[in-house]
Amino acid sequence: MSNTPEIVIVGSLAIDNISTPHRKCGNLIGGSATYASLAAAKFSSVGVVGVVGDDKAGKKIISSLKNNRIDTKGIEIRRGKTFLWEGRYLSNMNERRTIFLDLGVFAQFKPEIPQNYHKPQILFLANIDPSLQKDVVRKVKAQFYCLDTMDHWIINKKKHILDILPLMDILIVNDGEANLLSEETSLLRAGKFLLSKGAGAVLIKKGEHGSFLLYEKKIFIFPAYPLGFSCDPTGAGDSFAGAFLGYLSHQGFRKENFPRALVYATAVASFCVENFGISRLVELKRIDIERRVKELLKLTQVD
Amino acid sequence: MSNTPEIVIVGSLAIDNISTPHRKCGNLIGGSATYASLAAAKFSSVGVVGVVGDDKAGKKIISSLKNNRIDTKGIEIRRGKTFLWEGRYLSNMNERRTIFLDLGVFAQFKPEIPQNYHKPQILFLANIDPSLQKDVVRKVKAQFYCLDTMDHWIINKKKHILDILPLMDILIVNDGEANLLSEETSLLRAGKFLLSKGAGAVLIKKGEHGSFLLYEKKIFIFPAYPLGFSCDPTGAGDSFAGAFLGYLSHQGFRKENFPRALVYATAVASFCVENFGISRLVELKRIDIERRVKELLKLTQVD
Repeated sequence: MSNTPEIVIVGSLAIDNISTPHRKCGNLIGGSATYASLAAAKFSSVGVVGVVGDDKAGKKIISSLKNNRIDTKGIEIRRGKTFLWEGRYLSNMNERRTIFLDLGVFAQFKPEIPQNYHKPQILFLANIDPSLQKDVVRKVKAQFYCLDTMDHWIINKKKHILDILPLMDILIVNDGEANLLSEETSLLRAGKFLLSKGAGAVLIKKGEHGSFLLYEKKIFIFPAYPLGFSCDPTGAGDSFAGAFLGYLSHQGFRKENFPRALVYATAVASFCVENFGISRLVELKRIDIERRVKELLKLTQVD
Repeated sequence: MSNTPEIVIVGSLAIDNISTPHRKCGNLIGGSATYASLAAAKFSSVGVVGVVGDDKAGKKIISSLKNNRIDTKGIEIRRGKTFLWEGRYLSNMNERRTIFLDLGVFAQFKPEIPQNYHKPQILFLANIDPSLQKDVVRKVKAQFYCLDTMDHWIINKKKHILDILPLMDILIVNDGEANLLSEETSLLRAGKFLLSKGAGAVLIKKGEHGSFLLYEKKIFIFPAYPLGFSCDPTGAGDSFAGAFLGYLSHQGFRKENFPRALVYATAVASFCVENFGISRLVELKRIDIERRVKELLKLTQVD
């Protein structure tokens, strides 16, 4: 008796120790798949593919996802330690440094796809090794494919990313990644290059400066929600992507829904940074999101 | 027989030598008052208060402004050299260095206000020494006052800026200046601080990331026009401010017109950077601006 989740998300599950110029906070549930799935689950049904260790941290992550109505059958529990990441944000809160990293069981991650995940509406390949992403694309027959990546993989495995790009309905990256992947300094040219390489759409996240969507001959640009204080930017990009796809899954994965999906993504990501780790995301209700979406539309209303 | 210009702009008139990673271009007409007045004159009547030398450069600046139907009676021709600035843009085209600077006659600039400039609709104090700005505010009885400044004056004459802030209907600064003036890292908090110090509205320019307007309890945020290539960013901020005020002068200086004025400002500034110096601004027609405004509204249209 297993329902197919509308969205399958493959990515990292981790424990984060985070320090900012204002505070430190340790033993936080994190990882790209965690943030993306918590955000997507505000709108649609989600299953996660990932790996945790057989330690307390692993149990904590799985139970937290389950408590948020996320299907965890795709999470493998491997003998060993759960992925641990320690990061520090610099004074501008945009730049961050990795202070310590223990991949643990994530180093041997080989995504296993449960039977009920084989034909979802959306497959979201959150940030992991592009060779694994390639492998998952072969195994899962989704209606729509979406891809994220990071600078490390662009530098070391660019060919693999470009190989699967033509299969992707949307590529979701941040500005630095778009520039690095395209070798262009202008985001407009970067986006156009990535479209020319086969992506159906390119969504570029610019953090506090908003986001930028290119598809067919269209462009949509939207600013970020203005925050007086960002507590912890970790997971903002992943929750942005998760909310974007969750909204599309719920409303229909159609290009005319892209702009509004991006407004919802902007709203959810703005909540994410208001507290450490996933805490704000977990307590977030649909009514809070709707309220912020309304506010965002008002902030950008010309007449 | 002198008509009062709707907008009086006080600022610098200069010759610029500019180098970018792509090209060099010298002997360009520049200065904050030049860019601002050329942009404002697309919408309204403009008079300039400034100083040039009795050299070829000074003649060239005055004749260029006159050719663009700008009242130059407020420009003093002083014995000596016209202000010369040499700047270099770094590879990201955002950061710039001053390579050489000769203030020339600008060092002794004492704004003299012609009789017909005494009661304009708008007085725009473009970037000059805040002590001079203070002096001009006393001499000119405008309906509306607007202020720009720069990091140099914020560091050295912050008190003077804060002194005249309560007289200002709009403060127009870039993000770095807003942060410096308010000692806040978040632009939202910076804007709120500057409102609390008496400015009627605060317009923060973020270059390629768009702009941000705070007034009363309202916020309006608008992205920049996406450009594949920026030839020369010099004057983008000044032409942004000039177009913003020009549009308001034409349509009525009312808060409900602020958001649309900002879209026009965004459009004009995006043209400014398409070529070196004032060349693109000079050839610009109202129909070009209207076309880009339409495009901008489409780029940011959610449904």
